Order: sequence, then C-alpha cells, then structure tokens
Amino acid sequence: MSQDSAETLRGESQWLKTAGDGTSYPIDDVEAFELRPDGSLFQNPSTIQPSYKEGSTIDWFWEEGTEREHKRALHSLRGIRKLLAPILESSWTWIVIILVGVGIGVVGAWLDILVKWLGDLREGRCTHGFLYNQVACCSGLDPGDICTEWATWSEYYNVKSILGQSILQLTFYIVLAIAFAGSAAVLVTHYAPYAFHTGIPEIKAILSGFVFDRFLGAWTLLIKALGLALAVASGLSLGKEGPLVHVACCMAYLLSRLLRLKQSEAQKRKLLAAAASAGVSVAFGSPLGGVLFGLEELDTFSFSNESDVMWRGFVASVIAAMALQYVDPFGTAKLVLFQVSGVSATWKAFELIPWMFLAILGGVFGSLLIKLNAAVAVYRHRSFLRDYPIAEVIGFTAITAAVSYLVVFLRVQSSELVANLFQECDPARGDYHGLCNPTAVWENIFLLILTALVKIIFTSWTFGMMIPAGIFLPTIAIGACLGRAVGLLTEGLQRTYPKALIFNSCPPDATVRCISPGFYAVIGASAMLGGVTRMTISLVVILFELTGALSHVLPIMISVMVSKWIGDAFGKDGIYAVWIALRQYPWLPPSDFRDNGQSASQIIKSVDNLVVIQDEREFTLQELDQFVTSSTFHGYPVVRGEQLLGYVAGDKITAYIAPLLADDRISQTPRRCTFSKEAAASNSDLINLSVLLDEAVLQLRKEIPLEVVVQMFQKMNLRHILFSHGGKLTGLVTKTDIVWLLTAHLPHTAALSNEER
Amino acid sequence: MSQDSAETLRGESQWLKTAGDGTSYPIDDVEAFELRPDGSLFQNPSTIQPSYKEGSTIDWFWEEGTEREHKRALHSLRGIRKLLAPILESSWTWIVIILVGVGIGVVGAWLDILVKWLGDLREGRCTHGFLYNQVACCSGLDPGDICTEWATWSEYYNVKSILGQSILQLTFYIVLAIAFAGSAAVLVTHYAPYAFHTGIPEIKAILSGFVFDRFLGAWTLLIKALGLALAVASGLSLGKEGPLVHVACCMAYLLSRLLRLKQSEAQKRKLLAAAASAGVSVAFGSPLGGVLFGLEELDTFSFSNESDVMWRGFVASVIAAMALQYVDPFGTAKLVLFQVSGVSATWKAFELIPWMFLAILGGVFGSLLIKLNAAVAVYRHRSFLRDYPIAEVIGFTAITAAVSYLVVFLRVQSSELVANLFQECDPARGDYHGLCNPTAVWENIFLLILTALVKIIFTSWTFGMMIPAGIFLPTIAIGACLGRAVGLLTEGLQRTYPKALIFNSCPPDATVRCISPGFYAVIGASAMLGGVTRMTISLVVILFELTGALSHVLPIMISVMVSKWIGDAFGKDGIYAVWIALRQYPWLPPSDFRDNGQSASQIIKSVDNLVVIQDEREFTLQELDQFVTSSTFHGYPVVRGEQLLGYVAGDKITAYIAPLLADDRISQTPRRCTFSKEAAASNSDLINLSVLLDEAVLQLRKEIPLEVVVQMFQKMNLRHILFSHGGKLTGLVTKTDIVWLLTAHLPHTAALSNEER
Repeated sequence: MSQDSAETLRGESQWLKTAGDGTSYPIDDVEAFELRPDGSLFQNPSTIQPSYKEGSTIDWFWEEGTEREHKRALHSLRGIRKLLAPILESSWTWIVIILVGVGIGVVGAWLDILVKWLGDLREGRCTHGFLYNQVACCSGLDPGDICTEWATWSEYYNVKSILGQSILQLTFYIVLAIAFAGSAAVLVTHYAPYAFHTGIPEIKAILSGFVFDRFLGAWTLLIKALGLALAVASGLSLGKEGPLVHVACCMAYLLSRLLRLKQSEAQKRKLLAAAASAGVSVAFGSPLGGVLFGLEELDTFSFSNESDVMWRGFVASVIAAMALQYVDPFGTAKLVLFQVSGVSATWKAFELIPWMFLAILGGVFGSLLIKLNAAVAVYRHRSFLRDYPIAEVIGFTAITAAVSYLVVFLRVQSSELVANLFQECDPARGDYHGLCNPTAVWENIFLLILTALVKIIFTSWTFGMMIPAGIFLPTIAIGACLGRAVGLLTEGLQRTYPKALIFNSCPPDATVRCISPGFYAVIGASAMLGGVTRMTISLVVILFELTGALSHVLPIMISVMVSKWIGDAFGKDGIYAVWIALRQYPWLPPSDFRDNGQSASQIIKSVDNLVVIQDEREFTLQELDQFVTSSTFHGYPVVRGEQLLGYVAGDKITAYIAPLLADDRISQTPRRCTFSKEAAASNSDLINLSVLLDEAVLQLRKEIPLEVVVQMFQKMNLRHILFSHGGKLTGLVTKTDIVWLLTAHLPHTAALSNEER
Repeated sequence: MSQDSAETLRGESQWLKTAGDGTSYPIDDVEAFELRPDGSLFQNPSTIQPSYKEGSTIDWFWEEGTEREHKRALHSLRGIRKLLAPILESSWTWIVIILVGVGIGVVGAWLDILVKWLGDLREGRCTHGFLYNQVACCSGLDPGDICTEWATWSEYYNVKSILGQSILQLTFYIVLAIAFAGSAAVLVTHYAPYAFHTGIPEIKAILSGFVFDRFLGAWTLLIKALGLALAVASGLSLGKEGPLVHVACCMAYLLSRLLRLKQSEAQKRKLLAAAASAGVSVAFGSPLGGVLFGLEELDTFSFSNESDVMWRGFVASVIAAMALQYVDPFGTAKLVLFQVSGVSATWKAFELIPWMFLAILGGVFGSLLIKLNAAVAVYRHRSFLRDYPIAEVIGFTAITAAVSYLVVFLRVQSSELVANLFQECDPARGDYHGLCNPTAVWENIFLLILTALVKIIFTSWTFGMMIPAGIFLPTIAIGACLGRAVGLLTEGLQRTYPKALIFNSCPPDATVRCISPGFYAVIGASAMLGGVTRMTISLVVILFELTGALSHVLPIMISVMVSKWIGDAFGKDGIYAVWIALRQYPWLPPSDFRDNGQSASQIIKSVDNLVVIQDEREFTLQELDQFVTSSTFHGYPVVRGEQLLGYVAGDKITAYIAPLLADDRISQTPRRCTFSKEAAASNSDLINLSVLLDEAVLQLRKEIPLEVVVQMFQKMNLRHILFSHGGKLTGLVTKTDIVWLLTAHLPHTAALSNEER
C-alpha cells in the first residue's frame, strides 16, 4: 500500500479504502543476500519483490528499475548462459503471446458457433440432429432448394392452428431467452462476479497500473466465455466484442502463470496489452483495428517502450486472426463480418447532406445513450434492484423478448440484422423481411426508426446488468437502422423528384439506382460508434475491416469526425471513461488538462500531514522495524534535519533489516541505523541503510504549474512525486490526487465505487 | 541558444556550432509592461518571445508554459470577447489546416498531371496539341480503336529507317531526361538547397523541436514542387512521396505566416504534423495511412496533447484526399493508385513458404539498400563530387537513362511498372511488355530480378543527389519486381508439378489459376518497404489503401513483420534515422535505451564546468546585462551560496531589466538586484528578479539511472535537466548529450554534418 491510499482518501471509494491495509513480506529467498567486501551483509534490493495488494497501483518507476536490474543480471552471466538466457526468456514471452493469439482465435470462433446454435434453437431445431444450427442443417442444398431438415418448433411439434403456432413459437422464444440469460446471470453472480459487463474499463485501469488480479482469474475466464455465449443467444441488446477482450486478457494472465513466466507487473501489463489487441482482432475480424484499439483506447502510448508493445500487439493480432480464419466459424473463409456489397463505386457530393445529418444524429444519440446508461447504472445501484441482480436479468430479458417478438427487425439477432442492413437490395439475393419492398418504403423507415429507439432504451439498461455484455454491436445496430432509414428516405426523395437540382448528378432515369441505402447504414453505424466510444482512428480502421468498404473510407472518416465533434459538445468522455469514473478506478485520462494558473501547491499534501522517517533520531533497528510494520504505508520520505534524504519502500526496510535484527537478538546489543551516508561514514557504529533509498527519486518545486505535474504523471506513469525546495521536503503528490483532480468534474463520479464486488 | 550547445560540443557538427551564438531581443511591445500594486514596473514574462536561432532546439517546457499563459489571458478577457476570442483563434488554426489540406491535394494532383505530361514527352507528342499527355490525347476513343493522335518522335518526324527511329527515340529519351534532371538540379542548387532529398529526416527533426525555419521557406516550396515533377519525369529512380510531405509542411508554415497566425513554436509543430499527414495522404491516396505515418514515423506520440494532434492530422488527411479525389488526376475517381485486381479471394497455406522467402529477401535487400545509400552519401561528401552536384546529377541521369532504355521494365515510369506488376494477367486486358507471355516465364523472371538489382544500385545513388527524391516508390518497385519473379517461379513450379504433395490445395487441373503472381508483387513490395523504412502499422495501412487488397491484410502484415525482424538483425535503424544520424540533427530516437548500470553522473556536466549566475554577488543591473549579452548561452542556473535558486533564460533578463537600466542611467544610481526572494525581502534596495526564474524547473539526483534520464527527455520533450542534491546544484544534462548518447554507436554518425548547406 502506498502513501497514495489512505492519506488521500476523498471519496467513499471502496477501492481506495481497502487499499489502506499494512502488509509485510516474508523473506523466502536466502540467496538474495550476499556478503560484501566490507564484511556487511547485503541484500540486493532488486530481489525484494513488492507484493502489490489488490486495489493498489503499481509503481512504474520501481518496476522499470527492477527490469533494469534484471537485464543487468542477465548481462553479467558468463559463457553460454549469457548467450542463451535472454533468448530463452524472450522466447518464453513470445510463446505466451502466440498461445494467447491462437487460443483467443479458437475460442472466439467456437463462441460464434455456440451462439449461432443457441440462437437458432429459439426458432426451431434441426430434424436430423439436435446439435446442428440452421446453416449446418441446411447445408449441401442446391440454390433454390427449400430446406426441409430445419423445422420451426410448430412444424416440429406439428401444430396446425395459426394461433397455436404463434403461441408455441412465442413461448419457445421467450422461455429460452429467459433460460439463457438467467443461467448466465446465475453463473456470473455466484461464481464470477467480475465476469459481468464489458470488462474494457477494468482492462484500461489495469493497463494503466491498477492491481486487480482477481479480475483475470480462471473462473472469470470460463464464466465470461460461457455466459457471453448464453447472453448473446438470449437476444438481449448486447454484443460480444468487449467481453472477448476481457477473455483474451484472462487467457494471457493464466497462461503466463501456468508457464511460470517470471515477469514484473510492468511486463505483465505489456503482455495484457498484446492480448487485448488479439481480442479486438478476433471480435471484429480486424487485426489492424486490434493494434490501433490498443494504441488509442487502451492508451499504450504511455508505456515505457511503446514500439515494443505495439509490435507484440501486432503479432498477437495477426495470429489470432489467422486462427479465426483457420477455424472459419462462418464457413466463408473471410475475416470480413459484415461485407458491404452492391454499393456503387463513387458517391455524389449531395450525399454529404444526409451523411452530415446522420453524423449529427450519431453524436446526439451516442451522448444520450451514455447519459441514459449512467443514469440507469446509478438507479440500479441505489434502488432495490441492487439486491436482486438475477431477478433483474430475468425480468428484463422477458420484457426484451416480448417486445422484440413484435417487431421483425428486433426479433432477429443483431449481427444478422446488421449484415443485412449493410447490403444493397439485389433481386438475385432475395428480400430481407420486406426491407427491399419498393412499395413499403415508409413502413420500413418507420420500423427502422422504431427499432433504433427501442434498442437505445434496451441497450442503456442491458449494459451494466449482471451478465457479460459488450456495447459495440448494439451501437452498430442502432446506427445501421438509423442510417438505412435515412438512406431509404434519400432514395425515396430522389426517385420522387429525379429532376430536382440537387439530384442532377444522378442519372435522370429514376429506375437506375443512384443512392445506396446499404452504405448509409454503414455511415450511420460509424456515426453512432463515434458518438458512444469517441474513438477515431481505430474506429475507422475497425469499420472498414469489418465492412470491406475501403473505397468509401472518406465518408466513414467524415462521419466519425463530425459525430465525435457533436458528441464532445455534450461531454468529452466516451462510455468507457464514464464507467471508469462511475467505479472510480485509479485511471488517468490521457486528456489534456489545463490549470487556471494553479501550481502544484494547490494539491500537494504538505509535509506536516505526511508520515516521514526522521533520520536524525537514528532509530534502533528494532524501532525502525516496528515503525514500518505498524504503519500502513508502502513507502516513506526520509529526512534528516530538514534535508530530504530520499524515499524508501517499507518492504525493502523489513527485508533488509530482518537478518540484522536476528543478529541483534543474539548479541543482545541493539544497533542503531541511518539513511545518511555522511552519518554512517562519520560514525561506524551506525548501520548504513542508504542503499535502500530509491535511486530514481524525482523532486519538483511547489511552484511548478499544476499542468506540468499532471503531464508528468500521465507521461511517466508515476505513483508519486516528492516536492522539495532547497533540499527540504515540502510535500508529496500521489497518482490518486491527480485522478481525483481529473475526474471530479464528471457527473456520477464514484457513484458505484462502494458497490459490493 | 541554450547551454546545450557549445558546452557539449563533441562532434564537429556544424549545426551545434552555429547554435552557439548569443542573441539579444528588442522590446517592441510596450504594453507588455504593467505597473504592479507595489509600484514596481513588471513585465509579464510570457510576453517575452524567445526568438530561437536556426539550429537550436526549442524548449518544450517553456513553450507549454507560454501556451498556458496565453490560455489564461484568453480566459481572463471580459464580456463578448471572452466568448469569441478562443473561437476565433481556434477557427483560424482550423482554416490553416483546411487550406493546407486543400492546397496539398490540389498541388499533388497537378504534379501528377505535370509528371505524366513530361514523362510522355520523352516518348513522343500529341499531334493535335503539345500540352496533351498520352492518355488525354487518346481519350474519347472507343475500345479497340487505335490512337493515331499520339505520335512517337520518329512517327512525328516521319523517320522511316529502323536505325534512325531507334537513334531518334533514344536521343529524345536521354536528352530530355538530362534536361529535366539537370534543370531540377540547377534550380535546387542555386535557389533552394534545402529542396534536395526527401525531407522526411528534417521534418522528423523539426517536429521533435529542432529550429530550422529556412527549410520551410517559399522558395523551397516552389522549387521542391517544380523540381520534383522534373526529377520524377526524368526517369531517375526516385519517388514523389517524401518530398510531398515536405511541400505540405512548407505550405502550412507559409500559410500560417501569411494569415498572421500567432503561434508558439510548439503550436507550429502541431500544425506541421497535421500537414505532414496530409502530405502522405495525397502521396499515396491513403488518408488513414497519413495519420498513422504521423503517429508512427514522425513520433507525434510524444507531443503534450497527442489526441489533439492526431485529430488535426485526421482532418487534414481527409480534406487532402477529398481535394485529390475532386481534381482526379488519373481520371478514375479512385484514391487507390495501384489497384490489385484478379487476385483469388483465398490463399493457400503453402504460399507462406514463398512469402516468407520474399520477407527475408526484403529484410536483407532493405538493409543492403540502407547501407549502400549511406556509403554513397559519405563517399559523395568526401570526394570531388561534392563540388560538382549538378554535373553529378547530369552524369548519373545519363547513365540511368542509357541503361534503362535497354531493359523494358526499367524504361517505363516506376509507377506504371508497379501498377502493372500488381495486376494479374488477364487476356481481356492485354499483355504488358510480354509479362503475361506463358512461354517466356524464365525470361521474365530473369528480367525482373535484373530490374530489381539495377534499381537497388540506382536508388542507392540517386537518393541523396541534389534533386528532390523520395525513397518509397523505388523501394516498392524493387520489391514488386522481386515479388512478381518469385510469384512467376512458384506458378511455374505448380504448373510443372501440379500433383506434388505441397500443391494439393490447388485444383489438379493445371490450367486453372491457383497462384496469383500479382499478389506476390504486393508481398514483395511490403517486405522491401519493411526492410527499408522499418515502419510497421502505418506501412501496412498505406499498403492496403494503396492496393485495395483488404482481404489479404494478413499476408501483408506477416511479410512486413518478418522483413522488419530480419532487417533489425542487420541494424535497428530505418533509412530516415540513418540520414538523421548522418546529418546529426538533434533528434532523439524513440527507441528503448538500456544503460548497463550507469547513472546520470556519467554524462552530466558537473557544476564546475557550467556558467552559472552567482546571486550572492548581488550584481548591479549593468553587470547582469553585460554578463548576459556577452555570454553565449540561452539560459543559466542561478545559485546563491551553494543553494540552487532556479533557472533563468537570458532573453528574459535582458527584456525585463532594459527599462530599469534606462531609469538607472537617468537617475545615475546603479541599482543592484537579486534572484532570491528572501534577499529582496530583507533588503528593499535590491531589485527582485525572482519572477524571472523558470517556474517549471525539474531537479533530479545524480544517482538516478541513466535510462530514466533518457526516458524523461524522450517523454517530456525536455531541453535540459538540472541535477541537485540537498538543494545544491550538482550539474546539468542537455538534450544534445542524450542525442549523442543514443546515436554515437551508428556508423557514419555526423559524417555529413559539416556539409555546406
């Protein structure tokens, strides 16, 4: 636990409170001690592993120091070991990366197959085998043949009356939805509470240094994967994308433990970043998007060695995509999930008007979705619903299923809906639930808008219930409905007024297609995603890897751009940042912070409120040991007189002085110690503890602008900064202070942070 | 000029030496002074603009401080101005960005048209108008018609004998090449020496803080654009991509001066980064690749507000691509330059073997190209060629043209060659110089390999001559030749042994196409680019925006990955980093630096070697002014007794004390001054200069690991760090020291740095 914790407690955050316990560490590695030339017993400080408690923040400076020591140790090996040890170590890491890539690719593919089967089960079953899904059941037919092997439930049970058919189908539809979602909720609530929700806010926090190992456990992995399949198949308004990232990170964590990969917390995070890229790569079939997601959304810019991190993410993404393509869950051998087809190669200038409109809609509805979702989360947390998570899931699933059954575009799986909305009408391909009926344009527009609005409400509620749930796919679906509606409207206008001035770039013959409503659906999806996630580059890449609409990258970029602009006007944070704030994870937004002329002195804890080691007292070893073990902090500034000597970690002291204390007990002469080199040199009776002082201590002045302090925390991944003036300690600022400074303005900040988890 | 300069001079660098001049600044803004409540005259330190000299390095810390002050000033305005001023200011910036986007799009398009015309002129002319290029001349014909309007020179002058025809054509081909390249060289040498080469190394250095405004001047813009068209049309082995980035940056710089955009050096760099993205966007028709190029290669990660920078790059890229598409130089309304066509949708596992081979070739030949190019540059610099740049260009153009005329694939423009190598053979499209002749497979393989090898030699020499020259297109051409050769070889093998075990995923009928040699050319180009530039993500994006081969992104990623691995084994730096080292620009490689246990004390300039202001002497204003104006440094640490008070910039002192000195002269009483608040408080006769001390001063200890110091320079964009212990100044480290630390190991470091420019 670090000084960051209890001292700076400002909210009611559970995370920060539990972080306040004291800890002590056993010395289990006798070899870590060595006799130095001057006869003193010396423990190499780098062999003392700080065991971070759950909920604390890792010390990147310290971690990098450890890595440095470790590299040096490898370097100082002799002979063949000097050559082999680094290769062995790095190949071990690469093996984990490759295994994670393959693993998440295969898991992702099998989840797709499982979801397809479970989802189809709600409609009917295959007569020649229960375990076939509709596509597998009907495969091998010539085009034009009617599939007789697949039977809806009413066909299967041979119900003749239309009323009976409807009731049977509806019953299966709703009951199975409840069964799927309910079992997912039971699994999550009882066995792995961390498996709920998307997981991306937590991954973001973990990557930035938050210690939250339980979030990556084996049960979480298993139940998140299984629960995800059940939740998606239940027809709730949720997607599999975010949870797959979480699953990939769990796999990386468990594999590295299984293979006994010795790694520091910093290296662990670099591995997790690569795994997260692989997760996105599989979720969207978008290897490049995965790497960029890692860079942009997970902010792996700030890692000490970003090109290395990017490189690993790149490899993991490629391998995961290859594994997915090899398993080939859709039987198409393609990575592109929602192929855009039949779109005319060029676009007309007047189309920018409806696209702008869609971008604005995306920004507005995206912000609305974020705000609704946060409001629902806070309401759920404060109301009776908090105590009945399973009942909430079952109840809401029943409502979703019942409402969805009424509207055809809501009834089908979101992914199927999106795939069809993205495609142009083509007589050869057949109609899709009347979408291509040219006489029913107004009905379709109405239905699409209705679907979008209902889905906004459903998604706001679903994203945060006790089941695994991603936000990407529902957002795409909402956007695609809106986009297709606007596209149909534009097309209708153009066909009605083919001679209007604005349409004069279209061929005058109204029967020739000029406008591609399918591409409008892509634009709508881009705009909506821009509004909800506020991502830019990685979103565009994901979108065109997803749709294959490379030639139309410009309109996609423009719509993402405009919707982000509009959305930012309603609040700068995307949905993940809002959830991080809701749960008050110690995560620093990478955003620009502007002080209004304040300096660091506005936020530092002054020296009077700090627990420091007063070195001039020349503690006995006994006293020092008691002081450290009884105190709750992770480390202490050491001062002598008024001079700041440095910063020392509590666990280093404990480990270093333990054998000396044992000697003392035998010789019955309590020795005194000092952290000052000068004092130790002038008085040889004093034990010199100056080797324990943190070598990488950073000092600033109080007068430094607040903005610079924030920037240093953001860029250097620090945990604390000491402030001094003329060699005197004047105060301390911790990461927690900065997180609070940057997130306090958000509505609902910390609203969920004392939730039971 | 900063302390970084003369003190730390280690090489013979011209850049660092010229950086050592002293400077003084006139006070031309009387309003910057205000009367403070205590009656003293006060100049707001933020109004003192440091005018960086060419060749120095900007102080990002200082720059950000200025931006802070400026934002605060805007914030403290009253009434309607408070509302309007920030909007007006940011819209001014956006106007520049949009204008740059439009400008570079239009310029890029017109350059394409000009190059096409000049290039065609070497073959013949249009009979019904001198200013038509071949495509424009022959447009309007029905397919199958023979174009009679376009005449080769021998047709035009009605030469009948075959020998006469050959001689006439060859003469025009060589003479016009020499005329084009020679005039480009004359223009560059006499009017804009900075317009030579690619410009990307310089842009990288400028973006990281190097002050080099002459590099962005109006003449450079004009001559780089014109010279580029001439150089490309001359048929030398060079491309237009890098120089277009330079042209875009010149445009941004000149536009911001033309529109009197008030911006700090830091803001200027953010604008330049956006312009560079737009340049790449236009060069490759790759808006997304442009943004990523900015992030990866130009390292705009490290800017204080990277999301803002990325966003501007995004907008500039999109607008530039739109402008390009609007002008539509190729008459195709497409952004994709080298459309891959006819490639089979899926690839077979065995194809990984030839692709791996290509990736290894790319890594090896890429490294070879870098090393050859550096060796040629050093040779040119040290030999007699240095004094005859124009003669060198003319001579080498003659050799290039003569050799190229002999080999058909060398004779055509590189871009035409690449476009054809990327396409599958298709009887409907016709043959391309015999490339699709199935009976001439071995001849074609030989010719392609010959072309690649000759191009490697030509490119190594050309890239560095006194003409604008990019490295991307020649590299793509080399890789495409190698790739097509390997593809033809694989296809030949498969057709000869269709029943071999390895080919059993191909249809057994050897007449059905199984292997797409055109796609092998893409793989070869990717591998070669990976080997030469060592870019990863941005390269992949550029490549598939360039080729449209989205479905084949995985093999492209793999080849870039492997060729980078192989290339890194021969040396970690890409060609741009090598050129930066050759010219010793003050640029910090973003690469990871590992010390071997050294601490900062190994590289700091100790306090005995520093020029410091000894405050306890309590200088008269006169003395201080003399000290500052006679000294050559940009700033000074201020100490009193042994205590470090802070750091002060020389120009701030000069500007602040000038009016006080004037008073002194009138009153004839020389006053004394101090930088210590305490001293000023205890002795009211002393003038308090403590407001001038740099507020954002960062202090470290000597014992801090070297690695951490390097990281701080890389991440925080610092110019210097002060080292202190117990409040006493112990030394100083500057950016120059760190650059030297990171680049000294490179071969040829600083080999060109004392070149006349």
